[in-house]
Amino acid sequence: MTAIRDDIHTVIEGRHDAILADFQALLRIPSISALPAHDPDTLRAADYVLGMLRAAKLEHVRLIETTGKPLLYADWLHAPGKPTVLLYAHYDVQPVDPRSEWDSDPFDPIIQDDYIIARGACDDKNNLTAIIHAAGALLAEGSLPVNVRFLIEGEEESGGEVIEEYVQSHPKELASDIVVIADGGIAGHDQPQLEYGCRGMVYVEILARGPKRDLHSGTYGGNAPNPLFALATIIAGLKKPDGTITIPGLSKTVRPPSEMEWANWRKQIPRFEEDMQADTGTALIGDPAQPPIMRAWAQPTMEVHGFVGGFQDDGSKTVIPAEAKVKVSLRLVPDQDPAKMLKLLQKRVAKLTPPGITSEVVNLGLGMPFFTDPTSPAFTASVRALEAEFDKEVWLSRAGGSVPIATTLQTVLKADTVMVGFGLESDGAHSPNEHTHLPTFFRGVRSFARMLRAFGEIDGGR
Amino acid sequence: MTAIRDDIHTVIEGRHDAILADFQALLRIPSISALPAHDPDTLRAADYVLGMLRAAKLEHVRLIETTGKPLLYADWLHAPGKPTVLLYAHYDVQPVDPRSEWDSDPFDPIIQDDYIIARGACDDKNNLTAIIHAAGALLAEGSLPVNVRFLIEGEEESGGEVIEEYVQSHPKELASDIVVIADGGIAGHDQPQLEYGCRGMVYVEILARGPKRDLHSGTYGGNAPNPLFALATIIAGLKKPDGTITIPGLSKTVRPPSEMEWANWRKQIPRFEEDMQADTGTALIGDPAQPPIMRAWAQPTMEVHGFVGGFQDDGSKTVIPAEAKVKVSLRLVPDQDPAKMLKLLQKRVAKLTPPGITSEVVNLGLGMPFFTDPTSPAFTASVRALEAEFDKEVWLSRAGGSVPIATTLQTVLKADTVMVGFGLESDGAHSPNEHTHLPTFFRGVRSFARMLRAFGEIDGGR
Repeated sequence: MTAIRDDIHTVIEGRHDAILADFQALLRIPSISALPAHDPDTLRAADYVLGMLRAAKLEHVRLIETTGKPLLYADWLHAPGKPTVLLYAHYDVQPVDPRSEWDSDPFDPIIQDDYIIARGACDDKNNLTAIIHAAGALLAEGSLPVNVRFLIEGEEESGGEVIEEYVQSHPKELASDIVVIADGGIAGHDQPQLEYGCRGMVYVEILARGPKRDLHSGTYGGNAPNPLFALATIIAGLKKPDGTITIPGLSKTVRPPSEMEWANWRKQIPRFEEDMQADTGTALIGDPAQPPIMRAWAQPTMEVHGFVGGFQDDGSKTVIPAEAKVKVSLRLVPDQDPAKMLKLLQKRVAKLTPPGITSEVVNLGLGMPFFTDPTSPAFTASVRALEAEFDKEVWLSRAGGSVPIATTLQTVLKADTVMVGFGLESDGAHSPNEHTHLPTFFRGVRSFARMLRAFGEIDGGR
Repeated sequence: MTAIRDDIHTVIEGRHDAILADFQALLRIPSISALPAHDPDTLRAADYVLGMLRAAKLEHVRLIETTGKPLLYADWLHAPGKPTVLLYAHYDVQPVDPRSEWDSDPFDPIIQDDYIIARGACDDKNNLTAIIHAAGALLAEGSLPVNVRFLIEGEEESGGEVIEEYVQSHPKELASDIVVIADGGIAGHDQPQLEYGCRGMVYVEILARGPKRDLHSGTYGGNAPNPLFALATIIAGLKKPDGTITIPGLSKTVRPPSEMEWANWRKQIPRFEEDMQADTGTALIGDPAQPPIMRAWAQPTMEVHGFVGGFQDDGSKTVIPAEAKVKVSLRLVPDQDPAKMLKLLQKRVAKLTPPGITSEVVNLGLGMPFFTDPTSPAFTASVRALEAEFDKEVWLSRAGGSVPIATTLQTVLKADTVMVGFGLESDGAHSPNEHTHLPTFFRGVRSFARMLRAFGEIDGGR
């Protein structure tokens, strides 16, 4: 904690109580977007956030009705000649089950030592509270040097379709030069991190149809084609046991990381491999030609998520099902095009389909890989801001997961996009006893304020 | 219908009304053993059958309490120097779902043209009614030439463990020379059939364990081993796409059918392949070195019945599950020993298990293949009886399925065992609108009576 004490500290420290009060109040609202029973709570959380935006003296604060949970918008556009920054976060949370594994009420935040424990504490009510208060503090001080827009959603944990649609259809209303996705993570309490890329996605169901009806495996076994067996052979034909994907042409357009990226990643390898080892608790596997960090950030993967069909209860029913399906995803990296990768997958599945079976690859969703140039002015400014706060070199990372809204905002707005956040992997997002480290949370508020200031030093605007 | 009219016709025809009344009364009782809500009905059915046994003037009629549904026993042992014949059938039925696909109430038997429609009409209340009335008619006429024992169970459709245990522990009380399993099928209304063999079984769950907890496929995909993928590669490694099993040593002890068997099967090939084609509605597959009838009756098969684990609902969750399992069965033929085949399977699975995964093959049940010499006196007598009734050459068949109680009775009692019954595959056992052809049902009663008479012509007894 060797951070430079400056006026940002003063500005934010004077507001600690109010910031914490908002954070706690938000955590008390069980805004679980996946469960319809919690729809009133989700609306209550939206309403509370609207109040925070108003209290921060933002303008045009409004709730945008959608076919799903409402979006929240606000702006402040009084910095002519300066960049416009769109700040994104979400007010919904994951369900709490298994409830029995929580040591306290998930919606009664308690503070133990330096930690606050509640559902949403690290995903994403911490970052949501932080961005509003960071902008509010600068506004109150008369020192917000950029234009800002807030776009906040309420179903990130349960679909996220309405914001995609809204952004696609409102490019002018949202016009911005820089996008900050305040839903990322940090590598350690003392290790700042910014993410400039994440993987795209092809998610499919492979259907296999065989006999015209379910059959008894005694009478028909040996003569009737079995759709579940067919799917097993198809899956086994998509990847070698060591993890190398065997879909011809799939890796042709994979762009290797730049020298600058690789130099930055090399520093992160020990922590990455240690974390990966600790989180999985088993031997790592994967394409032996690539180190683990490359396999997660710069290489495509294929995973199978579930087989549907046949008999899945306890006991020993002997059925050859008429049909079955399997859920499969590809994660993609630049410059893999999801629609083209889907075609390659479909071609491979057709080739692997055994006699007596017809197969079909059903597209459940495509997502472009996200990539922003980490040497762009927005990124360089973000690095400066975090280094000022942490007094430590910032790690520039990609992520293995997929953040569709990052890709959409970047593509539609043609804005440099930075993913940042202040929860750790070990804080347990989506898990029981989710928590956040309060000193790191307040560092987050200061970091966002510093970023807004640093963006103000960038030339231009529109 | 060119059967020889003789005294058996006279004896049985005089009883048609009483036989049909009992059959209908039994069909009205929803004795679904799999559903605890129907336990009182199952007891009611047991009670009704006890009444039928008493009315047939059988002796020692009694209900045997078990840990499951009761067994029913009766005997008549007044034919010294003659064989003792144990007659087996069951009084329970399958559930009726999907109920909406029934055109009439499954437990209100209706007669349309020559068919009676109800759950249990062809499995197994027809054969149960027939064996009791066949013995009862001969007893009433003073012409039952053999000793008989009835052993009737009430959970054939939902486990069948209690009868296994009872037979194992009561070999003396059940001592018999011949066993008739009255739960088989017939090839056609005018095509008599006797079964002398069926396949054994190894049923397992293969468990695969990978990461210590469920993981996000974005963050961990490419580095974490996926138990579902591991199971797919294991399954794909047990059998070629064409159906040939690839478990070393598995087929070494397969005994080829005898010349006499093969001569008998050859006649059945056209109907077998036509039925197989019609029932599956798709191209047949299987070991190309074997004709379809051999693949079903004289060769082992491996089938996969269901994968458990991961995400199986609608939509697109991206999870790498910590563990998963798959249900797999082998069907076995003489002289494959189930315990030894299980070991070969376990060895093969261990070899196919990919890096990062631990696997375990859990035995859910072993069953010996069943085989009785089709030239034994009991079989020859059965053939004579059915040829007298149908005036047509009897098909001697094996079955692809497994009938554990046939193996157990044969092994424990060291008795020649004949599987016979009068339902057709097309009668829809276990399906909506289950039915039986009434003229064939009455032929069944006559056939059982003729078999008992024919057994009386066999020398010996104990």
